[in-house]
Amino acid sequence: MTKSSNAMWGGRFAEGPDAIMEAINASIGFDRRMARQDIEGSRAHAAMLAATGIVTASDAEAIREGLITVLSEIEAGTFQYSTALEDIHMNVEARLTEIIGAPAGRLHTARSRNDQVALDFRMWVRDQADAAIDALPRLMAALVAQAEAGADWVMPGFTHLQTAQPVTWGHHMLAYVEMFGRDLGRMKDARARMNECPLGTAALAGTSFPIDREMTAAALGFDRPAANSLDAVSDRDFALEFLSAASICAMHLSRLAEELVIWSSAQFRFVRLSDRWSTGSSIMPQKRNPDAAELLRAKIGRILGAQVALLTVMKGLPLTYSKDMQEDKEQVFDAADSLMLALAAMTGMVSDMTAQKDNLEAAASSGFSTATDLADWLVRVLDLPFREAHHVTGALVKMAEDAGIDLPELSLEQMHAVEPRITADVFEVLGVRNSVASRTSYGGTAPDNVRAQAARWKEILA
Amino acid sequence: MTKSSNAMWGGRFAEGPDAIMEAINASIGFDRRMARQDIEGSRAHAAMLAATGIVTASDAEAIREGLITVLSEIEAGTFQYSTALEDIHMNVEARLTEIIGAPAGRLHTARSRNDQVALDFRMWVRDQADAAIDALPRLMAALVAQAEAGADWVMPGFTHLQTAQPVTWGHHMLAYVEMFGRDLGRMKDARARMNECPLGTAALAGTSFPIDREMTAAALGFDRPAANSLDAVSDRDFALEFLSAASICAMHLSRLAEELVIWSSAQFRFVRLSDRWSTGSSIMPQKRNPDAAELLRAKIGRILGAQVALLTVMKGLPLTYSKDMQEDKEQVFDAADSLMLALAAMTGMVSDMTAQKDNLEAAASSGFSTATDLADWLVRVLDLPFREAHHVTGALVKMAEDAGIDLPELSLEQMHAVEPRITADVFEVLGVRNSVASRTSYGGTAPDNVRAQAARWKEILA
Amino acid sequence: MTKSSNAMWGGRFAEGPDAIMEAINASIGFDRRMARQDIEGSRAHAAMLAATGIVTASDAEAIREGLITVLSEIEAGTFQYSTALEDIHMNVEARLTEIIGAPAGRLHTARSRNDQVALDFRMWVRDQADAAIDALPRLMAALVAQAEAGADWVMPGFTHLQTAQPVTWGHHMLAYVEMFGRDLGRMKDARARMNECPLGTAALAGTSFPIDREMTAAALGFDRPAANSLDAVSDRDFALEFLSAASICAMHLSRLAEELVIWSSAQFRFVRLSDRWSTGSSIMPQKRNPDAAELLRAKIGRILGAQVALLTVMKGLPLTYSKDMQEDKEQVFDAADSLMLALAAMTGMVSDMTAQKDNLEAAASSGFSTATDLADWLVRVLDLPFREAHHVTGALVKMAEDAGIDLPELSLEQMHAVEPRITADVFEVLGVRNSVASRTSYGGTAPDNVRAQAARWKEILA
Amino acid sequence: MTKSSNAMWGGRFAEGPDAIMEAINASIGFDRRMARQDIEGSRAHAAMLAATGIVTASDAEAIREGLITVLSEIEAGTFQYSTALEDIHMNVEARLTEIIGAPAGRLHTARSRNDQVALDFRMWVRDQADAAIDALPRLMAALVAQAEAGADWVMPGFTHLQTAQPVTWGHHMLAYVEMFGRDLGRMKDARARMNECPLGTAALAGTSFPIDREMTAAALGFDRPAANSLDAVSDRDFALEFLSAASICAMHLSRLAEELVIWSSAQFRFVRLSDRWSTGSSIMPQKRNPDAAELLRAKIGRILGAQVALLTVMKGLPLTYSKDMQEDKEQVFDAADSLMLALAAMTGMVSDMTAQKDNLEAAASSGFSTATDLADWLVRVLDLPFREAHHVTGALVKMAEDAGIDLPELSLEQMHAVEPRITADVFEVLGVRNSVASRTSYGGTAPDNVRAQAARWKEILA
Repeated sequence: MTKSSNAMWGGRFAEGPDAIMEAINASIGFDRRMARQDIEGSRAHAAMLAATGIVTASDAEAIREGLITVLSEIEAGTFQYSTALEDIHMNVEARLTEIIGAPAGRLHTARSRNDQVALDFRMWVRDQADAAIDALPRLMAALVAQAEAGADWVMPGFTHLQTAQPVTWGHHMLAYVEMFGRDLGRMKDARARMNECPLGTAALAGTSFPIDREMTAAALGFDRPAANSLDAVSDRDFALEFLSAASICAMHLSRLAEELVIWSSAQFRFVRLSDRWSTGSSIMPQKRNPDAAELLRAKIGRILGAQVALLTVMKGLPLTYSKDMQEDKEQVFDAADSLMLALAAMTGMVSDMTAQKDNLEAAASSGFSTATDLADWLVRVLDLPFREAHHVTGALVKMAEDAGIDLPELSLEQMHAVEPRITADVFEVLGVRNSVASRTSYGGTAPDNVRAQAARWKEILA
Repeated sequence: MTKSSNAMWGGRFAEGPDAIMEAINASIGFDRRMARQDIEGSRAHAAMLAATGIVTASDAEAIREGLITVLSEIEAGTFQYSTALEDIHMNVEARLTEIIGAPAGRLHTARSRNDQVALDFRMWVRDQADAAIDALPRLMAALVAQAEAGADWVMPGFTHLQTAQPVTWGHHMLAYVEMFGRDLGRMKDARARMNECPLGTAALAGTSFPIDREMTAAALGFDRPAANSLDAVSDRDFALEFLSAASICAMHLSRLAEELVIWSSAQFRFVRLSDRWSTGSSIMPQKRNPDAAELLRAKIGRILGAQVALLTVMKGLPLTYSKDMQEDKEQVFDAADSLMLALAAMTGMVSDMTAQKDNLEAAASSGFSTATDLADWLVRVLDLPFREAHHVTGALVKMAEDAGIDLPELSLEQMHAVEPRITADVFEVLGVRNSVASRTSYGGTAPDNVRAQAARWKEILA
Repeated sequence: MTKSSNAMWGGRFAEGPDAIMEAINASIGFDRRMARQDIEGSRAHAAMLAATGIVTASDAEAIREGLITVLSEIEAGTFQYSTALEDIHMNVEARLTEIIGAPAGRLHTARSRNDQVALDFRMWVRDQADAAIDALPRLMAALVAQAEAGADWVMPGFTHLQTAQPVTWGHHMLAYVEMFGRDLGRMKDARARMNECPLGTAALAGTSFPIDREMTAAALGFDRPAANSLDAVSDRDFALEFLSAASICAMHLSRLAEELVIWSSAQFRFVRLSDRWSTGSSIMPQKRNPDAAELLRAKIGRILGAQVALLTVMKGLPLTYSKDMQEDKEQVFDAADSLMLALAAMTGMVSDMTAQKDNLEAAASSGFSTATDLADWLVRVLDLPFREAHHVTGALVKMAEDAGIDLPELSLEQMHAVEPRITADVFEVLGVRNSVASRTSYGGTAPDNVRAQAARWKEILA
Repeated sequence: MTKSSNAMWGGRFAEGPDAIMEAINASIGFDRRMARQDIEGSRAHAAMLAATGIVTASDAEAIREGLITVLSEIEAGTFQYSTALEDIHMNVEARLTEIIGAPAGRLHTARSRNDQVALDFRMWVRDQADAAIDALPRLMAALVAQAEAGADWVMPGFTHLQTAQPVTWGHHMLAYVEMFGRDLGRMKDARARMNECPLGTAALAGTSFPIDREMTAAALGFDRPAANSLDAVSDRDFALEFLSAASICAMHLSRLAEELVIWSSAQFRFVRLSDRWSTGSSIMPQKRNPDAAELLRAKIGRILGAQVALLTVMKGLPLTYSKDMQEDKEQVFDAADSLMLALAAMTGMVSDMTAQKDNLEAAASSGFSTATDLADWLVRVLDLPFREAHHVTGALVKMAEDAGIDLPELSLEQMHAVEPRITADVFEVLGVRNSVASRTSYGGTAPDNVRAQAARWKEILA
């Protein structure tokens, strides 16, 4: 602990905190990631201080130029960070003082570390929301491209991982487009709600300086200044809402990743991942491991963990700022990094993967997957009540199963043993291609539906 | 396990599941809470089946009347639930069959338990979002009322639970209005996003019956039918987004509750909770325990637990429906009940509580709470750079602390020992009332600001 | 709110809490599950009060008999619970007063609701730990039985859900025995650590009555009385450690359940679950859904959710009792119920399931699963460094893959194109049966190892 | 992606994974923390390979010396890590190859990355358990020292943060010793359970090489080799049990930290933290913030987050290794760092803090804190049933409250208006010092009890 840092808090402490305290207290190890936001905020603040006459134009200009220099040093990697200076804010200010001298001491007028850190972190999170808003449509577009290519490829639709009914590859891909579309909506809503500027709320009570918060808010791209200073310095909703949206998105990614892992197995062979997104084994040369899919499946744990962490940290904190809140950044940094990487990786994997069309159709054609079509035919053509049609179908499935064949291979005679009114027309609904083609209700799996939905999404994403 | 239930699945199982399986599998113990939604959905479905000619008008009419009877039995408490019938959907249908006979068998045409449960649960969650959207403004109004009453009552503003600067009671109350206002926004966004109708997506693939999904969606108050059947039957985002919004809201409640607990202590005495929201002790007759506040503080645990539970359940599930999803309801039921009860209790507590105005002001006036005002004065009047003003202030605080007095009690002579340019005007900023009155920056704690913000919120909440 | 309940807190409250407060405050809706523990504790307490002369022998006898009557009413289902009486403790005491009159008023001497509830809940949790300690060996025995039956059945060993090396069914079953064995150890450790008696620590400070805590501790089966009264009334570690052990156990269950779901798919067909543990579909009569496995896979969410909930509740609570702690019971009740049901269901499923031996072996024999055996042969026989052997093996796998055959089908001539020193002996290690038989290192998959480990476990579980 | 890394997987991939894949896949950024464990494990493995004749003595010696060189490079900070080489294991092996050439290629014989990483990570976690087992007694000793010094200092015992009964400072300190003592027990149990050696289980199935697993297990300090290879490579219980114990410990830290924060407030002034563990404010020079306590209060969030993350990652993973598991390390690294830092900081804070004895006693003497003593006196001396004594006490408290005095200040005449049989002896129990001295039941707060318990703990911790 150097003298200079201790000096920053005024002269009241006889002893400096020791190494443990410094280790537990300092945030410069991670909050340097907010350097750009910090300098951007300081530049807006300095410009406002000059415009309102709180500092002179020449001081403001010195600050502005000094900050540009500091930023260039940071971007060039030549900036010397000091743990003794605790955080990014103090590091930047100390360097600014070295560069421009006295005027640096006026930058913190009408501002506090509390509103400064609230601003920097909010801007950082806003950037991440923007990154997600940018990345999600690219993943959606990759899925739409898969959907278009395979709008009429038949595959088994599963419930309970049991073959249920035939569906189309395109329809399956578009299901994920719906999910990621909702994630996009959540990110946009979160972004809109967080877009209030805390700068100028000072330590917690506002300030007596004649500041212009509308000006700084506008300069920094915010919709408006935050309306309550106590709230502004102790609010972490913006981070929590980002994490909530990220958790749900990561859950969607985990579902798709699980499917890719299962589909890549030797038993399924529904999909072939490209070499780019697979890895080998150090001891088993024949392996082709869906590592990227597995890592993506795991990200939900990491992001949910971050959300639990921050909500638990915030639980029961009295107003306003408590140091506990310093635990916010690493959680969000890590979750945001994980999400962005996962979205990029999934986009790459989906773009590169190859559906094994023949395997999909073969799987769809087994397992009595058109039993529902048969039951519906009995209702529609023979006017059986649904529950009765269900029983007749069950009996026919059992008959086929016992004979080791699938439904289309039953003869009309065999069927008549169960229900004598069945006619040869029934065979039209027992093929999987006919089955999917018949599901034309809105939202259903029929290829024409898939093409229409893919077109709708392409327009939205354009 | 009775014969009849087994029969429902068709005749393929030689044995019925035993007691453990029934216990782990049946959901009727909890999903009966969706009875009203289930019947409402069935009525809309039946009307649509008639309108599209899929069932006859007379069958539809029989179904409609039968369902009304079933609902009246449920509401009267005379309905006999059967665990063997597994869930609310089967219980209702079985009773309908008893009442109207054969036409009941046609109700399930072009529908599956998958889209039925997706519909019922979504409507149930939508009702809870509506309840939260109803309850939050009432809590906000109670806080605004407190804010108006105490717009100029001075209290200590804390950071780190240390006295930092004087603020006003009204400003503190409005900080929570901002938080609950964001919660309200999140609930509204969640409600809007979930308002797509899954009915008609059938088991997972849509249906070949000529259904009219726009008609059922409109009848049930949805904005539109869900666009992808695979997604619609396996989506639980609506529940997760509700839980996310509820968790953040519960975190806000925990913060206010913590403050009420601390403020009710003998050491603080900032607030007196009413008898209605306090309890006594079985062994310590003098106790006046803020039980309601403590229970509210704890609800974040319960609601966050539900969110973790459901996200963990959904992690890695392949499409479409898996039985794991049946774990969704109890979590959301419990979290929603907790949230609604907590919002009602907090509204009551806030409405009834009495701020101890004199204690608040006394506390605000100690602890050198106007040190920042002094520092700002040095900047503004003596044109000291902020960092230097900070050091001068620190020295004066130390002087006062050593003398066992507060800042306003220092004499001008004493101050001159540290900074000779200080003038008598400084005393104007050292009183807590002047301090809060001076914080007029937008979002600051000045009483006029508080009144303006309270008025703004009253208009919004009107 | 009845008069009588209000009276219980002494006469200081002008108003009774209203309906919301009653709803949020009362615990009788759930803590009635601790009735047996409550009465057992009270009986031990009364006997001690008599033995130490604090109450008369005749009062103690009246209390003893009265409590037996109350318990018999509860067990017979004739007990009338009252929400106004808030909790199980007050309900029992009020009924005791009705039955025996004045002496009932002496039961609470030298005791408080704080140590009473701490006792009851600890005993309840201890019972659940015992139940888990009873249930886990039964599940382990079912797995050992499967292991013995299939000690030499060959199946694919997977990493990344890709075929890696052949292993035996028995070895795979025993992997889970190891996991559940650790769970058993954790439950036993938790049980031993929680076995300290809080009774007699009174409200929080101990008591001035000459009580004998060793006597009550022994009577209730505890190892010793808790050593610090403040800790005893505010400790919930016993519940948290139970939940921690339960979460890890539920994670193991989720892994086995996932395997059962995947193995039951039409693509794998590794296992056939019995009818008892499968269900049908309301619309797809051919379905055979592994519902029980899916529900068990989900239980980790529920139990982890409970753990998160209780840890979050306990976070930051000052000593000693705070009402927040009342949120402990429902979480643990639900988690314990879920765990016990899941263990019973898994035991049933494992006992009943049938490995599809031929499918297992066929799957093991494809996918170049003996590539490692080939590489090891090259090291052992030709003395190649491991990394070089790995490259040679990779080249041979590629050759076989290009030819559409598996490794044992390559001719010696083909192999010589890659590595001329290979001899015909190599074919001995390319068969899956030879492969598993060769893995005789301790812990390896060789059938003899499996039989030895199964025998070891049978002895432990006997 | 360099050629050399790609080459490691064999030659089957036409393309190398691109930058995203490398970023998501590589673990060298964090797993380098296991370098020491990795090399220690390799040395034991090499020695065993020589002892069993699998490699020559001269190769083993070359490996041994090469590994010592690699370790010295790592410790000197001169080792060049390569992301292309993915992980610490490959980095070490590649460097070993550079140093010793061909023999390096024999080190991986009878071993796989799967058992290697399982070993390294387990040893790393074991070291952390040891560190916790070392740190907890130091914290406990600091608390015991506080307890001895203040064995008879009277302070308010709180429930609901309301004054309940007087207790002693020493008793309060010892409550935390009990908690951390249980944490110590959990860490020891976890350490014992994890102490099985996975090395030699190879990829997943064991090996056909004649390895000696007892030898490597003993050399690395394990109690025994792990008994099932499939389990050994996919078990992460050791990490989860460490995290569980850490979470509960962090919860205890959060409770003590919360008390320190509250006790440091101007309203309580129960304790004065040393300068070492407090910090100042950049804008409010008078502030003395309990930053360390606040940061410790928050650590539960971080550690619980890690536990949730890893349990969620492990949920539903089929055997054996899946890449998801690579997400284990960063969670545990971060949680372990947080725990160790928090334990050290709390030990420092507790050692340095000064109880404000006079403030504690003054607070204990207000708030009718001896009401229970009065009630107990009525039972003991006047033989009132407890419930009746409770009512009498309540009436007397109300009388004193209305008069604005505390219980000892009521006159005997005033008391007689409520209960005429009260005698002057009652005043002996109404003073707080008498109150605490009377609580002599085992576990009670009496100073002699505190001294005895402190002595007991000193012996245990010696």
